[in-house]
Amino acid sequence: MLTLSDARRSYKPKIPQLLAQPLSVAFQDEKKLPVSNEISPLFSHTSALSVVSGHQGRLETAPLRIGVAFSGGPAPGGHNVISGLFDTLQKMGKHHSMIGFLGGPGAIVSGNFRELKSSDIDHYRNQGGFDLLGSGRTKIETPDQFKSVLDVVTKLKLDGLVIIGGDDSNTNAALLAEYFLKHNASTRVIGVPKTIDGDIQNPYVPISFGFDTAAKVYSELIGNLARDTLSSLKYFHFVKLMGRSASHLTLECALKTHPNITLITEEKKPLQHIVQELANFIEQRAAKKTPYGMILIPEGLLEVIPDIPPAILAKLLLDKDSHGNVNVSAIETEKLLMELVQEELSRRNFSGPYQPLGHFYGYEGRCGHPSNFDANYSYALGCTTALLIAHRYTGMMAYVNNLHLPPSDWTFGGVPLAPLLVLSERKGTLKPVIDKALIDFKSAPYKRFLSHRMTWKNHSDYESSGPIQFAGDVSLTDSCPLILQ
Amino acid sequence: MLTLSDARRSYKPKIPQLLAQPLSVAFQDEKKLPVSNEISPLFSHTSALSVVSGHQGRLETAPLRIGVAFSGGPAPGGHNVISGLFDTLQKMGKHHSMIGFLGGPGAIVSGNFRELKSSDIDHYRNQGGFDLLGSGRTKIETPDQFKSVLDVVTKLKLDGLVIIGGDDSNTNAALLAEYFLKHNASTRVIGVPKTIDGDIQNPYVPISFGFDTAAKVYSELIGNLARDTLSSLKYFHFVKLMGRSASHLTLECALKTHPNITLITEEKKPLQHIVQELANFIEQRAAKKTPYGMILIPEGLLEVIPDIPPAILAKLLLDKDSHGNVNVSAIETEKLLMELVQEELSRRNFSGPYQPLGHFYGYEGRCGHPSNFDANYSYALGCTTALLIAHRYTGMMAYVNNLHLPPSDWTFGGVPLAPLLVLSERKGTLKPVIDKALIDFKSAPYKRFLSHRMTWKNHSDYESSGPIQFAGDVSLTDSCPLILQ
Repeated sequence: MLTLSDARRSYKPKIPQLLAQPLSVAFQDEKKLPVSNEISPLFSHTSALSVVSGHQGRLETAPLRIGVAFSGGPAPGGHNVISGLFDTLQKMGKHHSMIGFLGGPGAIVSGNFRELKSSDIDHYRNQGGFDLLGSGRTKIETPDQFKSVLDVVTKLKLDGLVIIGGDDSNTNAALLAEYFLKHNASTRVIGVPKTIDGDIQNPYVPISFGFDTAAKVYSELIGNLARDTLSSLKYFHFVKLMGRSASHLTLECALKTHPNITLITEEKKPLQHIVQELANFIEQRAAKKTPYGMILIPEGLLEVIPDIPPAILAKLLLDKDSHGNVNVSAIETEKLLMELVQEELSRRNFSGPYQPLGHFYGYEGRCGHPSNFDANYSYALGCTTALLIAHRYTGMMAYVNNLHLPPSDWTFGGVPLAPLLVLSERKGTLKPVIDKALIDFKSAPYKRFLSHRMTWKNHSDYESSGPIQFAGDVSLTDSCPLILQ
Repeated sequence: MLTLSDARRSYKPKIPQLLAQPLSVAFQDEKKLPVSNEISPLFSHTSALSVVSGHQGRLETAPLRIGVAFSGGPAPGGHNVISGLFDTLQKMGKHHSMIGFLGGPGAIVSGNFRELKSSDIDHYRNQGGFDLLGSGRTKIETPDQFKSVLDVVTKLKLDGLVIIGGDDSNTNAALLAEYFLKHNASTRVIGVPKTIDGDIQNPYVPISFGFDTAAKVYSELIGNLARDTLSSLKYFHFVKLMGRSASHLTLECALKTHPNITLITEEKKPLQHIVQELANFIEQRAAKKTPYGMILIPEGLLEVIPDIPPAILAKLLLDKDSHGNVNVSAIETEKLLMELVQEELSRRNFSGPYQPLGHFYGYEGRCGHPSNFDANYSYALGCTTALLIAHRYTGMMAYVNNLHLPPSDWTFGGVPLAPLLVLSERKGTLKPVIDKALIDFKSAPYKRFLSHRMTWKNHSDYESSGPIQFAGDVSLTDSCPLILQ
C-alpha cells in the first residue's frame, strides 16, 4: 500500500531554473549592510562582506566536503535543505561528499558524525522532522568548544560547515566563521534560517522555512475547532499557539481562520485589559444568544505583560534555558486566561453560559510533512548553500527571496551574518545575537488583520482551511504564507 | 482563490450503483434479531421487525416531507447524511421537502426548524461539522417532551423524522418510533449511527461515520509528534485521545502510527500496573540511550480502573451528564500519568532523563473535513435513510455494510433498533439503552495490535501517516479504517 511518505519521496521540488544548474551560477555583490560599532570589532574578518545574489555565470570547483548539523527545534523542510545540498554537490561532479553531525551542534564539538549517502538522502526527501541526523540545543560558546570544533572540521577536512537553525544557531555560525578565518582554517560556515516561529526576518529572508507548514497544521486544527463550536454552539475555545517572542504564527493563523479574538504578544496589553476584553466578549456573545467563540493566544504572551501577577511571574523566572529563553510552552497561558475570565465574570455576577476549552498547538507543527512551499523553499536553500560554499563564501546566511512569487521567479544568495547581529545581555554578559523579528505594526499583514479584527470579533465568519494538500489544484497545494502576500 | 471547502463542495460521493437510482430500490426482509424479554414489552409495535436489505426493485411513493436533527457531538460526514437524503428525495420526483431542526433534539420538542433548500445543501456538501443545523444534547424522556414532539411532527405533517446521533440518540429514535405508532401518528423514525468514538457497532454497522476522519486527524498529529521525538531525541509524548468507554479510536491510531505504548481502557489494568509499566519503559529507554517515546491513552481509561486514588475518584464522580456519562475529557489523565510516573521514578532513584509532554486530541477530530470514506459512507447512509422512510419503515437504524470493500460493493438497509437495546440503570431507573460496543479481545484488529505490541514498545518504528488527502493516488485518498481491514 502506498503511504503518503512514499508518495512524497518522489516529489520533485520546484526551484528557480538557474539554481538547478549549479555549474552556471555565479554570485554578484549587492549592497553592503551596516555593521554596528559594537559588533564590528568582534567580526574583523567577516564584517566587510557584501550581500551576494546568484546570477548566470560559471562555477569551477574542486571536490567539496561539507558537514551539516540541525540545531534547535525541528521545522518542516530540514531534510530538504540537506537533499538540496546533496543534489547540488552531485551536479557539480564526482568526488564531492557530505557528512551529517548526529544530534545537533554538540556533535560538531564532539565529532559525532556519519557519511551521508544517496540512500540516506532519498529516504528523507520531502519528509518532516530532523530525524535523519537528530537535533540538539548545545550552544557553542566556550573557548574549549571552539577549539574542539576547529579540530573536528580540520580533521574531517571540511570545506564547508552548514548549521540549520534559528537566531542563536545562526549567531553561532557567524562566530564560527570568524573563528575559522582567524585561525586560518579553510572551512566556510553558512547558516540556514530555520524556525517555525518566523522570527528570523530581514529584507532578504521574508520568512524562515517551516513556518508555512506549522501555520497550516495549526490552522487545520483551529478551523476544525471553529466548525465544532459552530456545531455545538456552546464552547469558547482558547487556543495557544507556539511562537515564543513573536506572534507571526498566531497572526498567520488568524488571517487563515478568522477567530473572534486574537491576542498579539507585541501589542503588550496589560493582563487586566485582556481579561476585561475577554469578559466583555463573553457577555456580548451571551446577550446575542451565541455563547461560543474562538480565541487565539500566542505562547509568549505572558513574557511581556506589564502587570503579571507575582505567582505567575515567579514561575516565569524559574527556568530560562541556555539561550536565556523562558520555557514558555510549559506555562498554561490558555488555562490561566480561562480562569481569570471566569473570576472576572463571577465578579460581574454574570449568570450566562461560559464553557471554555483550552488547547495548545506546538510540537504538532514542528514535524509535519512539509507543505510544497516549505519543500520547495528549503530545497532551494540547500542548493544555494552548496553554491555559496563552492564560491568560498563564509559567515553568511543563505537566502531565497521573492517567496510570494512562483518558485521560478525566486532569487537566491547570501546575506552576511555580522550586520544582522546586535549585542544583548545573556547571563549577565553582553553577547552578539540576531535580534528576533517581531510583528511590525506598520506592516501590510498586521494592517490587514486590524482591518478585519472588529468584524471577526462580532461575527462568526470562521474559515476552515483543512489539512495540507499535496495533489490537486495548484492553488490548494502551492500556496505561500498569507503574511507574504 | 480556490479554498479546500470550495473544492470539496464539488466532490461527488461514491455509492453503490443501486443506491443512486432510488426508484429502482426495494427492501427484502432478512433475519429477525432476538429482542430481550425485558425490552420486548416496551416496544410492542416495533419488536417484531426484521432486518431489511436493499435490492433491485421498484419504489412508488407519494411526496414525502422529512425532518432531520443532529444530536450530540459533531462527527465528520453529518452534512452528507443530509445531502444524501435530500438528493434521494429529489430523484424520487417533485414535491418532496425537507426541514432541519435547529440545535439538536431539543428543537424537535420546541418545534424550532427551517426548510432546507438546494442552496443550503449545496453549501455544506462534504463539509465537516454540524453547523448547517447545529446540534445539542437534550434527551427526550419526559411524557411532556414526547407529547410535544408528537404535536410538532403532526403539525409539520412529517412523513419521516431522522435523528443523526450516537447510542443515546438512536435509543431516542427507537422510543419515538414506538410512541408515534402507539399514537397512530404516521411519522416514521430512522436513526443514523454517528459517533467518532466508534462504539456503535453490530453485524450491520461495522463502524459509525466520523470515526475514520477523527482517527486520521489524530494520527496525523501523533505521527507529527513521533517525528518530533525522533528529531529532538528527548521527549516522552503522552497523548490522550477521545473515546469515552471504548478505545476503538486509540486502537485505530495505534495501528496507524505504531506508538511504543498503547493503553486500552477495556484491558482494565490496575493503575499501579500501568504506572509500573510506564516507569519500566522510561528506565529501559534511558538505558538504551533513547530517552524518548510515544504513549497513547484513551480518554476513558480512568473510568474503569479498579484502584483509582480517592482524590481522582471524587473528581470522576462529580459531574455525570444527563446521559449518565462522566465528563471524562475534563480529566487530565495524561498529566496524571506523567506525574505518577515521575513519582515512581523518584521512588526508584532513577536519575536519567525524563521529559514528558502531555497532549489531548478530541474536539479537533469531530469537525474535520470528512475523508472520502466518511463523505461516501455518510452520503450512502442519507440515501438509505430516505429509502427506508419512502418504504414506510420505522424504528430502524440505517446501515451501510461491507465498508471494507469499494463503495460499489457496499450493501445497505435497516436494522431494527429494539433488538439493539438493553435495560441499564440511569439516575436510579432502569432505562432502555444501546449497549456501547467495546473492543473485542478476540477480534482481528485487536489480535493484530497484540502481535505488534512488544515490537513497537522496544523500537521506534513510528509511522507518520500525514494529513488527509483528497486528490491523488486512490490508496491515499480512499482508505477505510484499519480496524475494518
